[in-house]
Amino acid sequence: MFSSRSVLFGVGMVAWATTAGANELRETAAMLFGAVPTAVAEVRGEAVTQERVELGRMLFFDPRLSSSHIISCNTCHNVGTGGADNVPTSIGHGWQKGPRNSPTVLNSVFNIAQFWDGRAPDLREQAKGPVQAGVEMASTPERVVATLKSMPGYESAFQEAFPGESDPVTFDNMAIAIEAFETTLITPNSRFDQFLAGSDDALDDQETHGLQVFIDSGCGACHSGSNFGGQDYFPFGVVERPGASMLPLGDKGRFAVTQTADDEYVFRAAPLRNVELTAPYFHSGQAWDLEQAVAIMSTSQLGTELAEDDITAVAAFLRTLTGEQPTIEYPILPPSTIDTPKPEYMGAPQ
Amino acid sequence: MFSSRSVLFGVGMVAWATTAGANELRETAAMLFGAVPTAVAEVRGEAVTQERVELGRMLFFDPRLSSSHIISCNTCHNVGTGGADNVPTSIGHGWQKGPRNSPTVLNSVFNIAQFWDGRAPDLREQAKGPVQAGVEMASTPERVVATLKSMPGYESAFQEAFPGESDPVTFDNMAIAIEAFETTLITPNSRFDQFLAGSDDALDDQETHGLQVFIDSGCGACHSGSNFGGQDYFPFGVVERPGASMLPLGDKGRFAVTQTADDEYVFRAAPLRNVELTAPYFHSGQAWDLEQAVAIMSTSQLGTELAEDDITAVAAFLRTLTGEQPTIEYPILPPSTIDTPKPEYMGAPQ
Repeated sequence: MFSSRSVLFGVGMVAWATTAGANELRETAAMLFGAVPTAVAEVRGEAVTQERVELGRMLFFDPRLSSSHIISCNTCHNVGTGGADNVPTSIGHGWQKGPRNSPTVLNSVFNIAQFWDGRAPDLREQAKGPVQAGVEMASTPERVVATLKSMPGYESAFQEAFPGESDPVTFDNMAIAIEAFETTLITPNSRFDQFLAGSDDALDDQETHGLQVFIDSGCGACHSGSNFGGQDYFPFGVVERPGASMLPLGDKGRFAVTQTADDEYVFRAAPLRNVELTAPYFHSGQAWDLEQAVAIMSTSQLGTELAEDDITAVAAFLRTLTGEQPTIEYPILPPSTIDTPKPEYMGAPQ
Repeated sequence: MFSSRSVLFGVGMVAWATTAGANELRETAAMLFGAVPTAVAEVRGEAVTQERVELGRMLFFDPRLSSSHIISCNTCHNVGTGGADNVPTSIGHGWQKGPRNSPTVLNSVFNIAQFWDGRAPDLREQAKGPVQAGVEMASTPERVVATLKSMPGYESAFQEAFPGESDPVTFDNMAIAIEAFETTLITPNSRFDQFLAGSDDALDDQETHGLQVFIDSGCGACHSGSNFGGQDYFPFGVVERPGASMLPLGDKGRFAVTQTADDEYVFRAAPLRNVELTAPYFHSGQAWDLEQAVAIMSTSQLGTELAEDDITAVAAFLRTLTGEQPTIEYPILPPSTIDTPKPEYMGAPQ
């Protein structure tokens, strides 16, 4: 799992302040990370058509996918606040508190799998989870299909998105459409990406130093690929297990998926794109300060006490990973009809 | 309060199927109702500037105006679903159930006052209510100002929206900006408005008949003006008090504002623009079917049992009041900082 780290430790120590150094750093960074693409044409064998994106946009913002008619995908993956809800763990149906911090939907199509424990192989499978989770949207596939079929506006949108299908309004197609929309929630052209593309001015000296430290210290061993993470699973506490406030003992991470002892307290490395927008950090959502999160990571994952200046520089570098946020027109949703299932569990009377 | 009704009863009975009849009906309708304006330049002495609209758009969608960081104005006044939440009564902080059905924000700038009991004279005053209500967003003016001041993006947006003010980030200015944004949430060019503008084809025969019945039966006495309501207060049950399911005895309406016995069970006549999008109906949110709501109104307010065909026709006419829904770009919100007050009361741990 850590085979690349020894390579990484040998890379650094270049004179990053010179142009030659910047070019060397750029080449190393391009090899380890890479830029965010500006568009996605296809995802896991399904074409990303305009009709599916449009339908997915409606579904993503539609609170009637929840049994209360109050919670939409956007409630916890708010595209206006970094694609997450910016609270420790999400609040769902009946004001229940979810078990983990909501990961950002931005650039999530580039992750190897979804959820903190990777239990969904893709966004299409992921989309079905919260809709059905009792602590989140608390609906069922049957209820969702009945809801969507009750509205002529959705019937026609599904027909256009899935032409030739005799019964296109299905729970699976709902998920495929949401996935198609989510492929548009990508954030290209961050300052880091501009640096990668050749602009020496895109990063200042502190940020360039932070990138160098990020690479030299081994951060990039887990936080690799264009998403700076999201590509593989690692124990939280490779070297030193953090305190129970950051790593609650009851949540054993990927162990719940694989039932393998080696996977206790193993989580998918968090993707770090737009990380400045998505506090609080970790699956527990317990670190509000990016510098604090970097310090905890360096101790628990790398076993090194980074100097204060280096921590500040890494955090400054991480803030250059904020890309252009997606421009989304808020959808006008098809009106409910008399056949639309009514909202359920609407709280106690005042 | 009902002085105009006797006039109204004399108006009808025109031969609406002829062009001459259509013109007469058009003139009567123009006198009683009027079209929705396409823009609002000024509201209660405050200019609607682009900078204020932009700031207001951010605030309207920002869940950090609530103490939980989960609930925004748009949660209960969803611009994608007719400007309301389409549930009987709104769900707020801690999943508490609010006392009344959430009125639509669409065209609300044209109402004489805000809330079902008119307790806020304008949208700027209205905006301050839910932010502070314990059952809704459960914040305080101090907390809101501290939240907004913690984010440089809001500091600069307030400076641009309120130029020349030395301390522009105030609770009052928040409300003025939200009001400015809400003046853009108007829905011109409904089929009824097209009819008013001279298009005989805009309404079909049933809808034209429905308009005639609406006028002849006296519906327009309370549901008057360009919003078809929202202009004055009337008892729910002018003639016959509806059952407690529709009119819960504990909610005495405007009595709570005026402490006048005459105002018991008095409410602002609901504005009917876009009514097909805003079920369930009445302040209690207990009627899901537009035809049912029309039937209840005819019995309780007019003391007439409208024929089934007439009820259907009135409902068909009311569906012609759906205008062009506002096109809104979902705002990218300023990121929270380490100084932003943390979300509070985030539910019980799982």
